[in-house]
Amino acid sequence: MMSQNPDLALSDLRILDLTRAVAGPTCTRMLVEMGADVIKVEPTPAGDLTRAITKYRNERSLYFVQQNRGKQSFCVDLKDPRGIALVAELASQVDAVVENFRPGVMEAIGLGYDRLCELKSDTILCSISAFGQTGPLAKRPGYDFIAQAYSGIMSMIGEPGKAPSLVGAAIGDASTGVHAALGIVSAIHRRNRTGKGDHLDVALLDAYYGYHDANVVVYSGSNGEVKPTREGSHYGLVCPAGIFHAPGGFIVIMGFMHHWPDLCRAMNREDLIEHPDFCDDSVRVPRKPEVTKLVEDWLATFADIDSAVDALHEFDVPCAPVLSVADTVQNEHMRARGTVRTVEDPVHGPVDIPGHPIKWKNHPNNIELTAPTLGQHNESIMMERLGRTAAELKQLRDDGILLEKPS
Amino acid sequence: MMSQNPDLALSDLRILDLTRAVAGPTCTRMLVEMGADVIKVEPTPAGDLTRAITKYRNERSLYFVQQNRGKQSFCVDLKDPRGIALVAELASQVDAVVENFRPGVMEAIGLGYDRLCELKSDTILCSISAFGQTGPLAKRPGYDFIAQAYSGIMSMIGEPGKAPSLVGAAIGDASTGVHAALGIVSAIHRRNRTGKGDHLDVALLDAYYGYHDANVVVYSGSNGEVKPTREGSHYGLVCPAGIFHAPGGFIVIMGFMHHWPDLCRAMNREDLIEHPDFCDDSVRVPRKPEVTKLVEDWLATFADIDSAVDALHEFDVPCAPVLSVADTVQNEHMRARGTVRTVEDPVHGPVDIPGHPIKWKNHPNNIELTAPTLGQHNESIMMERLGRTAAELKQLRDDGILLEKPS
Repeated sequence: MMSQNPDLALSDLRILDLTRAVAGPTCTRMLVEMGADVIKVEPTPAGDLTRAITKYRNERSLYFVQQNRGKQSFCVDLKDPRGIALVAELASQVDAVVENFRPGVMEAIGLGYDRLCELKSDTILCSISAFGQTGPLAKRPGYDFIAQAYSGIMSMIGEPGKAPSLVGAAIGDASTGVHAALGIVSAIHRRNRTGKGDHLDVALLDAYYGYHDANVVVYSGSNGEVKPTREGSHYGLVCPAGIFHAPGGFIVIMGFMHHWPDLCRAMNREDLIEHPDFCDDSVRVPRKPEVTKLVEDWLATFADIDSAVDALHEFDVPCAPVLSVADTVQNEHMRARGTVRTVEDPVHGPVDIPGHPIKWKNHPNNIELTAPTLGQHNESIMMERLGRTAAELKQLRDDGILLEKPS
Repeated sequence: MMSQNPDLALSDLRILDLTRAVAGPTCTRMLVEMGADVIKVEPTPAGDLTRAITKYRNERSLYFVQQNRGKQSFCVDLKDPRGIALVAELASQVDAVVENFRPGVMEAIGLGYDRLCELKSDTILCSISAFGQTGPLAKRPGYDFIAQAYSGIMSMIGEPGKAPSLVGAAIGDASTGVHAALGIVSAIHRRNRTGKGDHLDVALLDAYYGYHDANVVVYSGSNGEVKPTREGSHYGLVCPAGIFHAPGGFIVIMGFMHHWPDLCRAMNREDLIEHPDFCDDSVRVPRKPEVTKLVEDWLATFADIDSAVDALHEFDVPCAPVLSVADTVQNEHMRARGTVRTVEDPVHGPVDIPGHPIKWKNHPNNIELTAPTLGQHNESIMMERLGRTAAELKQLRDDGILLEKPS
């Protein structure tokens, strides 16, 4: 089995992972990177659906590698009662079970929460879904963007009056996985104290909705008078604050309120600090196009973005270059911190992935882990976890209940 | 002190909260909603800076209320050694300390990790920041958007070639708080097993970077050939998939791959299922404007968005109305689940806020909690936690080391 570092936070925990795609695998990725022992159940014949995509270098999915390093793959026929029986037996041995099927599927295949509690009375089951396990939309098909649209977050992204803009990253899926991991570790903490399990219901919709730090309360608190909506590339209530054109790209600048004098000094326009047309946000907001032009004309005098950012930083103006994904991979700060890291995959060789986002000072971060080939751990799980004989293993393989593939 | 429900997951945990604004308060909000006892330290004279904003109904900040329900406010002068001594004493009594000052500030005020370990050898300190505690950018001023710009996520939002679009919600701040809560509960789990504390370093930049489910690995795995960038309102690689104009607003529709025949049936255009110009994504992608027009012309035949969504759901096409924040507050599903909930504030009366995003089947969710007035718990904390006398309390109040305000 995996050789785990006993010093890692969750090295005593065993997780059974029935998830696929992104949200669920991100949850168990969080746990495995903190030391948990994770068995990933993959259905025959193809396993996690992400094994089919992003085959840039060879037949091994890079997407799958990123999400599933360190997990053990148990590839089993979930349409056969013998397969389900094996999974149920594993479920009775672990601290928590995680799944992200459409609500109702776990019951349909004989692994619902009540059934799992019959096998192990303090079962902790975490169900991840787009809309949650309850409510009128629960069984509707969901993607990240579907939940984002319902949550109101999408309505806050893009140019006013035009169609909202998509976000080209799975912010909802991935961060919902983090919520689920928090729920699981908290539920185990509770079980250790009370002896009780529980069924956690974690939804993309609910996670997205929690990101409204102000919108809901402002709408409700103003008795509906203030209706938050998207504002394009610049904030509506203060000025300047937004994304500015600069030579070769874009810069975020926060030059509002107490930052305005610093920005004026950076631009060598001390005359504007107290100028009646520019002295505070209330007069700058109505002059937003003029203020934006002023800033962009100044930015245009630089050779490139980095020199403009340096000039702003000299005066402590909060700012940032809008880095492309390509830029981030080479960025000195992100390399130094392990925000981005190069891992060695046995098939791909070196490949860059995001580092574990929770960093510990006194024990290992970014441990070395390898994503499993399909069914790679069938044998060890059958013999060591489930106490089966070689003959029994062979029979299930011959019957197609267990499957292994080379990538 | 707070009357806590001993059945809640974290009801045995004590947290000292030195955070302000959003990311840190979201972290301790997660913990307090799962039962933890949280003391929020607020600096004199004004407390958390969010107490100054969103005063729509009266002098009490709605923003503050949303982020800080259930926490106990201890308002103390952090510039005075007597104030720092009180905070240090509290730090030695808790399971974890959380802070989101700019890196270096905790050391400067005498509450750095090493100092806290002198007071309590198994101290768990969680530091939340924009760029992290280490690396060349660590001490730069940060906002959510600053970290988002560096992370490459901002480059993935908006129309290609144009300035990216801002996201009108604190997705990075809030979700970084969730990461921090996961780190804290995991660190406590480890301490309970090993007796060791640790210093956690949780950064907005790292959390944002983790949301690149595919971008980093696609760029790296293609050896730099594929350079992910923003694509506006429609996906680039499949079609149709994106945000469509509809009567009165916008609808997200996922009609690509195996969803195309369902969409054709919904549109009563079965002739397009096998049509050589439309039969799969490879031929539809180059015809994206034509496909988009086809879908939008059909959507235009509906009276409103809801009827179009119903028609699509009849054929199991994944879709969603792009709800405004105002829409979400009334939404039947979100009300039924407690995604949005109305809480009773003693000053504001009823106000809507996002519900706790981790839902438990068998024990209470969305417990009743009240946000504290500034320094509301000074007395109980001084007398019960710190064992001070009424005379000592009075002296510190008279000297301005402790402060209370009515909102």
